[in-house]
Amino acid sequence: MGPPIETPKGTRDWVGDDITLRNNVFDKIRNIFRLHGGTEIDTPAFERKSYLTEKYGEDTKLIYDLDEQGGAPCALRYDLTVPFARWLAMNNIRTIKRFQIGKVYRRDQPSLEKGRMREFFQCDFDYAGGQCDSMVPDAEVVCIAAEVFEALQLDVVIRINHRLILDGFFSAPEVQKEMVEKGLDVNVATKLGQYLQRDKEAGTVPRLLTLTSDPLLSANLDIQKGVEEMELLMQYLKAYGVADQVQFDLALARGLDYYTGVIYEVMLPIRKTGVSVGSIAAGGRYDDLVSMFSSHNIPCVGISFGIDRILTILKDGQQPKAQRIDSWIVIASSDKVLVQQRMALAREMRQAGISVDFDPKADKKPRKQIDIAEKSAATVAFLDLDDETPGNPRLKILTPPHKNPDIAPVVDRNNVIGQVKRHLAQAEYNS
Amino acid sequence: MGPPIETPKGTRDWVGDDITLRNNVFDKIRNIFRLHGGTEIDTPAFERKSYLTEKYGEDTKLIYDLDEQGGAPCALRYDLTVPFARWLAMNNIRTIKRFQIGKVYRRDQPSLEKGRMREFFQCDFDYAGGQCDSMVPDAEVVCIAAEVFEALQLDVVIRINHRLILDGFFSAPEVQKEMVEKGLDVNVATKLGQYLQRDKEAGTVPRLLTLTSDPLLSANLDIQKGVEEMELLMQYLKAYGVADQVQFDLALARGLDYYTGVIYEVMLPIRKTGVSVGSIAAGGRYDDLVSMFSSHNIPCVGISFGIDRILTILKDGQQPKAQRIDSWIVIASSDKVLVQQRMALAREMRQAGISVDFDPKADKKPRKQIDIAEKSAATVAFLDLDDETPGNPRLKILTPPHKNPDIAPVVDRNNVIGQVKRHLAQAEYNS
Repeated sequence: MGPPIETPKGTRDWVGDDITLRNNVFDKIRNIFRLHGGTEIDTPAFERKSYLTEKYGEDTKLIYDLDEQGGAPCALRYDLTVPFARWLAMNNIRTIKRFQIGKVYRRDQPSLEKGRMREFFQCDFDYAGGQCDSMVPDAEVVCIAAEVFEALQLDVVIRINHRLILDGFFSAPEVQKEMVEKGLDVNVATKLGQYLQRDKEAGTVPRLLTLTSDPLLSANLDIQKGVEEMELLMQYLKAYGVADQVQFDLALARGLDYYTGVIYEVMLPIRKTGVSVGSIAAGGRYDDLVSMFSSHNIPCVGISFGIDRILTILKDGQQPKAQRIDSWIVIASSDKVLVQQRMALAREMRQAGISVDFDPKADKKPRKQIDIAEKSAATVAFLDLDDETPGNPRLKILTPPHKNPDIAPVVDRNNVIGQVKRHLAQAEYNS
Repeated sequence: MGPPIETPKGTRDWVGDDITLRNNVFDKIRNIFRLHGGTEIDTPAFERKSYLTEKYGEDTKLIYDLDEQGGAPCALRYDLTVPFARWLAMNNIRTIKRFQIGKVYRRDQPSLEKGRMREFFQCDFDYAGGQCDSMVPDAEVVCIAAEVFEALQLDVVIRINHRLILDGFFSAPEVQKEMVEKGLDVNVATKLGQYLQRDKEAGTVPRLLTLTSDPLLSANLDIQKGVEEMELLMQYLKAYGVADQVQFDLALARGLDYYTGVIYEVMLPIRKTGVSVGSIAAGGRYDDLVSMFSSHNIPCVGISFGIDRILTILKDGQQPKAQRIDSWIVIASSDKVLVQQRMALAREMRQAGISVDFDPKADKKPRKQIDIAEKSAATVAFLDLDDETPGNPRLKILTPPHKNPDIAPVVDRNNVIGQVKRHLAQAEYNS
C-alpha cells in the first residue's frame, strides 16, 4: 500500500446530496439575481499576477502563483471582485448589474470548524455605474442579500457600517486608522465599547443618532457624509421592506483595502447558533478599484455569498433526502438474449424523459435484480418471455415494494410509455 | 495609458449570449446523463502533481504546475478522467455512472482556428464497474454520445476503433506500436491506406469482415478479441437504435496512454463543413487507470464532450437571440420622491417572479426612461402622481412600443401583480 490518496490540502470533492443541495442553492440565488436584471459572467480561474497585487492588503501572501516557465506571471483568482473590475476596464463597460458564481483560491491555513478552505465558492452580485443616485444601488444590493436568505429560509442579521464613519470615528478620537485593517485590537475595541454603551438600544437609528449627538463626532466631515448616506440607505431599505434585518454596527470593519463606502456582513443571529460561525455573505462599496485598471473610474457596490458556509448551515438543518422515485430499472428474465430488448426499451423511455437503468450483467437472477431495484425505491419494468409468443417478451410493471411480482400488471407493448408514465405518477402520488 | 488589459494567454471571459448558450447546452447534456442514472461529482481544479504524471504520454509537458512554496506539489487538472480515477480509488467505489462538467488546463499553444485554448471546458460521462457484461457499458456510453448530439440537433459521425485491433494490426504487419502514440506517420498511413482500399464500402461490418478474412490478421489473438467485442458492440448499438451514426475506422488512434479497449471520436460529417474541425467528443475504455491509484482495479469506459468546439459550431448556426420580454422597468414621474415607491413595487413584483429594473437616477426625464425601456423591449410600469389623491400614485402599464403613454391602461393598485402578469402574458402572446 502506498500513501493515502487525497485531494490537495484545503480542497474537497463534491458528491451526492452535497452537490445536489449546492446546485439547488445556486439555482435559487441565480433566480434572485435575474429578477434584478443581473447578467452572468464567467472569468478564467487565473489572472495576470500583476492585476491581483496591491488589492488585498496583507492577504496578498495568500495568493496562489502558477509556476510560469516563461510567459507573463499568472496567479489563481483570490476573489471574483478584482476579475470583475478587470473585465469592466478591459471592455470599457460603464453600467451593469453582473453576477458570477465560481471557485476562488487562497493559500490559507485550512480549518474545517471555521469553514475555511483553500478552494471555495463565491457567488457575487455587483452593481457598477456612475450614473446612479446616491445609495440606490447600495440599497438594491442589501435588498438582494435579504432576498437570497429569504429564499434559502435562513433568518439573518445584516450588519452595516460605513467606511467614512469608521474613518471619521478613528480620526476624531485620534485612533490610528491602520488598527482596523484586519479587525480591531483590544484598545480600540475598549474605546468602541465605551462609546457604544451610551446607547443601550439595538438597531440602526438610535446608534446613528447617538453618533451625531456627540459634538466632537458630528463636526467630522467624513462622519457627516457617512451618516447622511446611512440615513438615506435606511429609508430605501424600508421601501424595500427589509430594514428589520439590518443593524448599524460601528464595530464592523472589513479587512480588504478596496472598500470606500457602505460595508456589510450577513450573520446568523447569535441567539440561534450560540456561537458565531462568521459571516455568510459580505460586501460593500468600492469606488476606486476599476480606476486601478482603467482611466475611467466606475463606482461599484457588491456582495459576495460564502456558499460553503451557507451549505454547511443548510445541511445541518436538513431532513434526510427522500430517495428519488423516478428511476426505472428494466430487467429481463434469466434469458440473456433479452439484454438487447432492455436496451431498446431503455432508449424509448429515456426519449420520453424517464430515467432508466438496468443491470449490466444480463444473466443476474431476476429476484436479485428486483432486490437491487427495491433498495433504490425504483419501479421495475420486468421483461418476461411469454411461452405463447416466443421472441416477443411481455412487460410487467412492478412498483415498490416488489414482494409480489406475480400480481404485477402486464403492460400492452403498444403503449408502453403512456402506461409507464401513469404508473410513475401513481407511485409518486402514493408516496 | 498602460499596456492593454487582457485575460491570460489562451483564456477567455464568458458573457452575454455565449454564457446563455453554454448553460443551455450544459442543461441539455446534464439531462441526458441523468436519464441514464448518472451521478454528478465536482473535483478540485488542482490535484497532487504526482497523480497526473505518467498518464498523458508526451502531453505531460502541458501540465500547469502551481508554484508551491513548501507543501506537496500540485498541478492544475489536465482532464477530468484522472481526477475521476483518483476519486474512485480514494473512496473505494467499485461501480458508478458519474458525470462531471468543469474546466481543464493545458499549457498548449493557443489557436483560435483550431478552437484550442489553455483553459477550456470538458463534460464527461464515465461508467465504472467490473460486474458488467462485455460491451454493455461501452454501448451505453456510445449511445449517450448519440443522444447528446441528437438533443443538440447536430448530425454527427461516431468513428470507432479498438485498441486491441490497432495493436494487433501493427504487430501483425510488423509496424511499431509507438508510431500511433500521437496519430499516424506517413509510412503507417500508407500501409493502412493500402489495406483499407481492399474494402470499397463504408461502414462497420464490411470492414470488420475484410479484417477477419485476412489469414495473417485473423490469426492474431488481439485482433480476434477486438473484432469479437466490436461485433457485440454493434449489436447493442443496433438495439439502441444508434448504429447508423457509427463507423468502424481502423485509422482512428487516440494519443492518451490509458486507453485499453474501444476508442471513439465524434466528428461533424465532412460533407457538411468542407473541412474537419477535429473531434467534438472522444473517449474509450481504460481498464487499468484506477489501478495506478489503488490495489483494486476498476474497469472504466467514458466519453468527454468538447464543449468549446460544440458551442462554436452551435453559435455559427444560431439565429440572433430575441430580446427577453419579461423585463419590467418601473419608472416614476419626474417627482423624485417616488423613488421609494419604485423600490416597493419592484420588490413586490420580484417576489411574484417578475424581473424588474428601474433607472438608478430618480429625476431622469420620464420620456428618456421610457426610451431606454423601449430599447430593451421591456414593458413599463409608470407611476403617476395623481392630483386628486396626493401621495398615492397611480400605476399605468405601457407595453412596447411606448409611443402613446397617455393611452396606457391604469392599473388598480389593489391587484398590481395579477394585472401585470396578465399584461406580460398578453405581450408574450402578441410577440
